[in-house]
Amino acid sequence: MKVVPRNRVIYTYSFRHKPVEHVKLNETFAIMTEDAFGGQIKVEKDTVEGLDWSKVDGATGPVFVETAKPGDTLVVEILGIKTESKGVIVTVPKNGILGEKPFGPVTKTMELKRGFVQFEKNVRLRARPMIGTIGVTPKEAEIPTGSLGRHGGNMDVKDVTAGVKLYLPVFVEGALFAAGDLHAVQADGELCVSAVEVAGEVTLKFKLIRREQPEWPVLETEESYSILACGDTLDEAAKYAAEAAAKALMREHSWSFEKAYMFSSLAADLRINQVVDPKKGVRAVVSKGFITLKSLLTA
Amino acid sequence: MKVVPRNRVIYTYSFRHKPVEHVKLNETFAIMTEDAFGGQIKVEKDTVEGLDWSKVDGATGPVFVETAKPGDTLVVEILGIKTESKGVIVTVPKNGILGEKPFGPVTKTMELKRGFVQFEKNVRLRARPMIGTIGVTPKEAEIPTGSLGRHGGNMDVKDVTAGVKLYLPVFVEGALFAAGDLHAVQADGELCVSAVEVAGEVTLKFKLIRREQPEWPVLETEESYSILACGDTLDEAAKYAAEAAAKALMREHSWSFEKAYMFSSLAADLRINQVVDPKKGVRAVVSKGFITLKSLLTA
Repeated sequence: MKVVPRNRVIYTYSFRHKPVEHVKLNETFAIMTEDAFGGQIKVEKDTVEGLDWSKVDGATGPVFVETAKPGDTLVVEILGIKTESKGVIVTVPKNGILGEKPFGPVTKTMELKRGFVQFEKNVRLRARPMIGTIGVTPKEAEIPTGSLGRHGGNMDVKDVTAGVKLYLPVFVEGALFAAGDLHAVQADGELCVSAVEVAGEVTLKFKLIRREQPEWPVLETEESYSILACGDTLDEAAKYAAEAAAKALMREHSWSFEKAYMFSSLAADLRINQVVDPKKGVRAVVSKGFITLKSLLTA
Repeated sequence: MKVVPRNRVIYTYSFRHKPVEHVKLNETFAIMTEDAFGGQIKVEKDTVEGLDWSKVDGATGPVFVETAKPGDTLVVEILGIKTESKGVIVTVPKNGILGEKPFGPVTKTMELKRGFVQFEKNVRLRARPMIGTIGVTPKEAEIPTGSLGRHGGNMDVKDVTAGVKLYLPVFVEGALFAAGDLHAVQADGELCVSAVEVAGEVTLKFKLIRREQPEWPVLETEESYSILACGDTLDEAAKYAAEAAAKALMREHSWSFEKAYMFSSLAADLRINQVVDPKKGVRAVVSKGFITLKSLLTA
């Protein structure tokens, strides 16, 4: 199995980066990933004050997907996520949803074992490893791996776990995929700007859907499809997610806008992904009972 | 059992309204409620164009809770919600999260039976009856029952179902409680501004917690506590919900702000209630494994 080492890190999604690996469709491969701080924070006396910010929020890649062409959809099957046994979370003064409050730069390290994250001696959370940054390369712009958009990127969606599929629009030959920023656990919102940041390894497989694309990245779980929208505010992100959901329901059921709009009000849950990245993220979650993948893609 | 009939409707939470019923603590009673349109829309040719808007978004009440005093918390146990067998949903031009789009006033009626909402011939949703408007009377201001705030009101939280408890701060003698606006089903967001609006009957019981109050209404389910915040934007509502969650975690665990802020990022899910009322609503959901009611109240 091909393994991309974690030192093959990029800080922008850009067509200028040379691929570090080529993979075929249906080929299982792995990428190793650094934590969001590039491994700079190891112990609790290391705070963000000493951080080299140019080494933060990297992603491993880019990986060239053979035969992927602009206009296709890259289907990313997340087969497994393994994390190291130690994670870290930080506060960053002036950052996060409560950034207006006065507070200091604090670092907390945590043991991850037997499926739990030990936050304090008597407080532990069930681990739910997820991928914070996962995306493909846009056509022209260079987009920092710490940002997010229609190409994916630093979406910080807690449901991007092992077992799901992610549908990303392909913009350049080979898609030029990269991922990183694993979290051992994160709540919807990621409200302090950091989750349990951890290095690890992700096992993946790619498929392609030819000549059709989703408007926004789409996440498929066992029960539902989620449209992963973003905007400058939560309100804007929610509007984009709602609009994409209504459009997809119109296509699925041959409904008028009004009927799809009504049905979205009953069956499209608007949920917050994160509130702390360069753009805010909202997903519209619709049960597979009401929508199929076909309606989420257009030629 | 005392039953408050559905013609005892108010359109503001106001200390000026005379109580329509007095109930004791632990006394099971019922209130009948009109649908959000005050029963004005019965068939699909009735659209919002002919609506008398002064008769919309009413609540049944107010009910005087014996011995309830300002500074206490009213514990509302929702024992049951029964809905009529026909519901209605509408689009209102210029309204809802996609109000900028051009669309007309459309009305759709639906049968509710055997636990399902029949949206179309071949499209049905599982019914999940909930209370859209539920609240107490503020000290001075008269607040329209179509609005929401620290007193509760038109919060449109889909988790306000039978079996939950709601904790509301008491501002006036007797609390002066009122509720209405049942929905047979609603998704997080209620994005078109209407859900499956339905008349019905709610069975309730009150308890009191003396001389302590939550900052925002708190919802207790079997698994979690949710802080129900609101603001002029989703971003503002999310900030208030996050702040209240962090404060409660500080009290619960005797943590510093930084530690509570970090933990909120891992264990406080920010979820959207609705995006279409006079204020937007966000709830912070925290598992009972991490927080107790005591920390959500202050003297």
